[in-house]
Amino acid sequence: MDDPFTEPADTREAILGAAFRALCEHGYADLTIKRIGEAFEKSPSLVYHHYDGKDGLLVDLLEYLLERFETAVSEDAFDLPPRARLDAYVAAMTDPGGVDDEYAPDGRFLVAMVELRAQAATDEAYREHFDRSDRVFRRFLERSVREAAAEPVANAETSPERNDDVDPAAVAATLQTLATGAMLRWATTTDREWTVAVREEASRYLSRTLPAVDPDA
Amino acid sequence: MDDPFTEPADTREAILGAAFRALCEHGYADLTIKRIGEAFEKSPSLVYHHYDGKDGLLVDLLEYLLERFETAVSEDAFDLPPRARLDAYVAAMTDPGGVDDEYAPDGRFLVAMVELRAQAATDEAYREHFDRSDRVFRRFLERSVREAAAEPVANAETSPERNDDVDPAAVAATLQTLATGAMLRWATTTDREWTVAVREEASRYLSRTLPAVDPDA
Repeated sequence: MDDPFTEPADTREAILGAAFRALCEHGYADLTIKRIGEAFEKSPSLVYHHYDGKDGLLVDLLEYLLERFETAVSEDAFDLPPRARLDAYVAAMTDPGGVDDEYAPDGRFLVAMVELRAQAATDEAYREHFDRSDRVFRRFLERSVREAAAEPVANAETSPERNDDVDPAAVAATLQTLATGAMLRWATTTDREWTVAVREEASRYLSRTLPAVDPDA
Repeated sequence: MDDPFTEPADTREAILGAAFRALCEHGYADLTIKRIGEAFEKSPSLVYHHYDGKDGLLVDLLEYLLERFETAVSEDAFDLPPRARLDAYVAAMTDPGGVDDEYAPDGRFLVAMVELRAQAATDEAYREHFDRSDRVFRRFLERSVREAAAEPVANAETSPERNDDVDPAAVAATLQTLATGAMLRWATTTDREWTVAVREEASRYLSRTLPAVDPDA
C-alpha cells in the first residue's frame, strides 16, 4: 500500500499520516503516542493536542482510510468490469503484498490491521469501526456480484451452470469472509502454500457461479 | 466448548485447566499468571514453578488442545461419513456457540483464540503453533474432501457437475481459510447476518463440488 498521506490537506491528515507510518514501522503493540509524535514532521505536541491516546487516533485513522475507500467506490475509481473487479479482489486477498495496486495493503500494514481488528474483540470503538467497515465492503462486493450476474453469459449452451439463482448477498458474504480469513492467516503463519490453493479454488468458484461474459455481446 | 479439563491427569493438565478457565473469564489482554493461579485449585505457586510467564503457558495450552484434536482424529472420534464431516465443519464455523459439540468452541473461548492468534503476528512461539495447527486441520479437511470425492454419486445422470477434477488440497485450503475468516468476523463484529449467508453459500459450494452420495450404493 502506498503511503496515502503524501500530501496531507490539514493537520488531521498530517497526524494520521504519522500514525500510519509509525504503525507500519512498530506494529500495534509497540506503538505509542510518543512514537507517532516522532514520525510527525511538525511539533509532537500537536498530536497530544488532537488525540487523548493511541487507540482514539488509530480508530480515526481506520475511519479515514475507510472514507477514502468509500469515495473511490462512489467515484467509480475501480475502472474494471464487475467480474474482473471480483477477480482482482480474490487476487489481492491471496497475495496482499504482491499486487501493484494502491488499495492492496502491503505486509506490514496488513499485520497491523490484524492487530487492530483483534482489539475489536474487546474494545467497543474498534468493534463499531469494523462493523461499519464490513458493511462498506459487503455493499461493494454485493453490487459487483449483482452486476456480474446480470451480464450475458459467454456461451449459454456450454455454460449450463449459469442460472438465475445466484444470491449476491451470499456470494459477497462468502468472498468477504474468505478474504478476512486470508488476511488473518497471512499475518499469523509462515506457510504460504495455501495462498495458491485458495486463489485457484476461489477462481474456480467464481467461474462456476458467475461465468465470464461474452465480450462481443 | 465444554471444559476439557474436568478430570486432569496430572499437575500440567490441572494448570492448563486453570489457564483455560481464566482465559475464558478474563480474555487474553487481562490475563495474568496471578489470575491463572487464582483459578488453580492447588497452590498458585505451583503455576510459577512450572511456567515462566503467561505466554509460555498459553502456547502449552494451545499445544495440548491441538494434541487432543489429533488424538480424536486418529481414533476416528468423528463418527461421520466424510461429506457429513465437512457439513458439520461448515455449520460449526458459522455458529460457533450454537453447536452442541465438544469440539465447537463457545463464544468466549473463540474470542480468546482470536486474541492468541493475533499474537502470532509478532510472536514466534505463537506463530510456530498456528503454523502447526493449520497443518493439522488442513490434513483433516484434505482427507475428508478426498474421501468424499471418492464416494459414488447419488445420481450420476442428473449430477453432471461431479467430476474427477476436484482438488482436495484446494478445497480444504478454501474451507479452512473461510473458517478462519468466520472466526475473526465472529469475534470482532456485532453483525451476525453474514453467518446465515455464508452457511448457505458454503453448503451450495459443497453440494456442487462434492454432491451427496447415494445411500443405497
